Amino acid sequence: MPGRVRRVPRRGRPGRDATVQSPASRPVRVPVSESAMPVRLVAPDPAALHPVAGLELGTARAGIRKPGRRDLLVARLAPGASVAGVFTRNRFCAAPVQVCREHLAAGRGVRAWVINTGNANAGTGEPGLSDARATCDALAAALGVEPAQVLPFSTGVILEPLPMERLLAGLPAAVADLAPAHWAEAAEAIMTTDTIAKAVSRRATIDGREVVVTGIAKGAGMIRPNMATMLGFVATDARVPQALLERWVREAADASFNRITIDGDTSTNDSFVLAATGAGALSVETDGTPAAAALKAAIVEVSRLLAQAIVRDGEGATKFITVRVEGAGTDAEAAAVAYAVAHSPLVKTAFFASDPNLGRILCAVGYAGIDDLDPSRIDLWLDDVHVAARGGRHPAYREEDGQRVMKQDEIAVRIALGRGDASTTVWTCDLSHDYVSINADYRS
Amino acid sequence: MPGRVRRVPRRGRPGRDATVQSPASRPVRVPVSESAMPVRLVAPDPAALHPVAGLELGTARAGIRKPGRRDLLVARLAPGASVAGVFTRNRFCAAPVQVCREHLAAGRGVRAWVINTGNANAGTGEPGLSDARATCDALAAALGVEPAQVLPFSTGVILEPLPMERLLAGLPAAVADLAPAHWAEAAEAIMTTDTIAKAVSRRATIDGREVVVTGIAKGAGMIRPNMATMLGFVATDARVPQALLERWVREAADASFNRITIDGDTSTNDSFVLAATGAGALSVETDGTPAAAALKAAIVEVSRLLAQAIVRDGEGATKFITVRVEGAGTDAEAAAVAYAVAHSPLVKTAFFASDPNLGRILCAVGYAGIDDLDPSRIDLWLDDVHVAARGGRHPAYREEDGQRVMKQDEIAVRIALGRGDASTTVWTCDLSHDYVSINADYRS
Repeated sequence: MPGRVRRVPRRGRPGRDATVQSPASRPVRVPVSESAMPVRLVAPDPAALHPVAGLELGTARAGIRKPGRRDLLVARLAPGASVAGVFTRNRFCAAPVQVCREHLAAGRGVRAWVINTGNANAGTGEPGLSDARATCDALAAALGVEPAQVLPFSTGVILEPLPMERLLAGLPAAVADLAPAHWAEAAEAIMTTDTIAKAVSRRATIDGREVVVTGIAKGAGMIRPNMATMLGFVATDARVPQALLERWVREAADASFNRITIDGDTSTNDSFVLAATGAGALSVETDGTPAAAALKAAIVEVSRLLAQAIVRDGEGATKFITVRVEGAGTDAEAAAVAYAVAHSPLVKTAFFASDPNLGRILCAVGYAGIDDLDPSRIDLWLDDVHVAARGGRHPAYREEDGQRVMKQDEIAVRIALGRGDASTTVWTCDLSHDYVSINADYRS
Repeated sequence: MPGRVRRVPRRGRPGRDATVQSPASRPVRVPVSESAMPVRLVAPDPAALHPVAGLELGTARAGIRKPGRRDLLVARLAPGASVAGVFTRNRFCAAPVQVCREHLAAGRGVRAWVINTGNANAGTGEPGLSDARATCDALAAALGVEPAQVLPFSTGVILEPLPMERLLAGLPAAVADLAPAHWAEAAEAIMTTDTIAKAVSRRATIDGREVVVTGIAKGAGMIRPNMATMLGFVATDARVPQALLERWVREAADASFNRITIDGDTSTNDSFVLAATGAGALSVETDGTPAAAALKAAIVEVSRLLAQAIVRDGEGATKFITVRVEGAGTDAEAAAVAYAVAHSPLVKTAFFASDPNLGRILCAVGYAGIDDLDPSRIDLWLDDVHVAARGGRHPAYREEDGQRVMKQDEIAVRIALGRGDASTTVWTCDLSHDYVSINADYRS
């Protein structure tokens, strides 16, 4: 169709170019970089994804947006599982997020999740809410549970109606596919612009009892979680009381999905859900015991690796950047500075170019909103290289040292504010041509 | 040198590609778009730039960063001129900004400005302050005025020492060049990544007296002014009392430079200065008279056209976007929503692609920080096309109507929040491949 951009593959084959329409209607060659690969991230080995007793997963190819790809995921939880979630703070939150909140608040227990990709069911008003509820009704009937025991999730394009006929037609196949071993397929079924499925699994022995924590996540753009990422699901077979799990899901989100950003766009559909099926050998009752601490640490580790995987597969990402802020007066200050740096298009393009144009980092620190910031107390490091001291270029800083670090595909930025003891860490990626290509094209 | 990116011209010749180094050190072809031109912006006609009596301008080629280009500007003001300025709120503000504030506060009157491009003298600590002061000292000596009567300005790369030897060596030539007619050369001398000089001039008859308002500005990236733009200078030959001019410079900034954004990066050097030489025929004493209103309107118009020119020449810009927010509860709410939309990389790439992926706009509205926002009251228009009503897709909205507007090079986005009577307008541009190319390369 005239005026439509042509599809650019999310990641290109070596040397491949695609033609997109320029605003003046002249074709412009847009590169899909040869180097566009997730940053130190490989597809999960299905054999390394330990099943979680009490949780089965089934997928289907429902043709929600495109035919032939896994785009529908159903999860069935054993009776008695604890489930807690955190959701986007975007006020324009999607219909399924609203229904999730309602169903969790109803307190009937959670017996199933249903997740579609290809359509976010966001910006869809009352019809969207009806669609999310009808999805829960259909899955509840198929599984013999109550509709309020089903949590729905959607991800994909905003402002378009959910294709209910295809979604409902796909449910029986997903239900028929339910099995504890299907984590790899589940991770694949929730991908949108992700180039690689994201799943992490840990097995540990705690108090002499074996415990499993396995999780999946998706997301590559519109990533600046404000409670959780686009979609993340982590499950353990341990038994954890509901109230404790609700605390842990917040703590795990704050240590993982709430610490990443790709483009600063907080999604309408962010959801992070933690389940403890209670079908395994371990049971924890209260926080503060060594067993509880060990289990929580495993949950946080799985969550953090999933969150970092989202950044490593960030749209157009060629580098994985850790931004550490120390010496802040408050946690909020630390976060404001870290996100100002992590969101700055100028900082992110400098990383893409491996250009140690590090004044851009100091500039972002300066506009982060700390009114009484004293620039003369600020120090800046790139990995081990001391770039700026007391607000100016460090006397011993040499451009080639900065250049050496900037050429790495993993870079740590450390900023010391000299104001107090608060600190934070945020993970982000660079801003490349591919980010523009991918997002100039996403719907086509 | 290995590992350095090659220079990509700020705007390319038709069909030109440049080679930049990919992170994996394989060359990637990066397009400099054939269509990359300022959006409906042409170079000023020198003959249309009316001199301002009482103000002379002189330029020189000092070789601050690159040889052979105009990079130094001196302005001399007649005794008795009123001068007021607003400056960046970036806490990491540049040395010249600090000296400007000191010299304005000293109240000795302003007799001269000195502006260099190529180096921002920011992130330079105490030596940077000394350099800014030494620049004022040298110009004051050359002009026979006091150092505190000189305002210094710098723009360019951050965190590198100002090359004082070359700057001071260039001053005599700039002083020798002083003349009232040199506005076009002055506009050229303050450019950095600008592709086109920016100057606007108006002549009016107020109360039967002729008055001139002429201004220049520069800026194309690191643009999210918080008081003023990178650099803007507007002068009138009218006489305006100092206190009134100080109010007007804020009002003019709020209606112009404080309403634009390119990449959300608030610069370290933003400065907007307004001068009233008093050398012309018109004199205003107080606000509220028809003459004062007419003069202020002319000043605001010149300032707004200069601010819009910065967006039209935004780094990589192919479209000029007006974001209008209405029905907000407060001015701050309106601004938060407008900037959330104007800063969203997803919204900006959709504009670049002419893709009516308008859910991204609603998503940005949702995360703008209004905690009690009711999405079901939100309406959205693209020019005359009613896209969303009550938070969902408008029943009559057709994709081809959205597509038609998105293909234009000037687009108005209008968002009605249904919360109150406050409103605002912000001007921005799209996010293109060229933005990445330009900023991945800027220093090289």
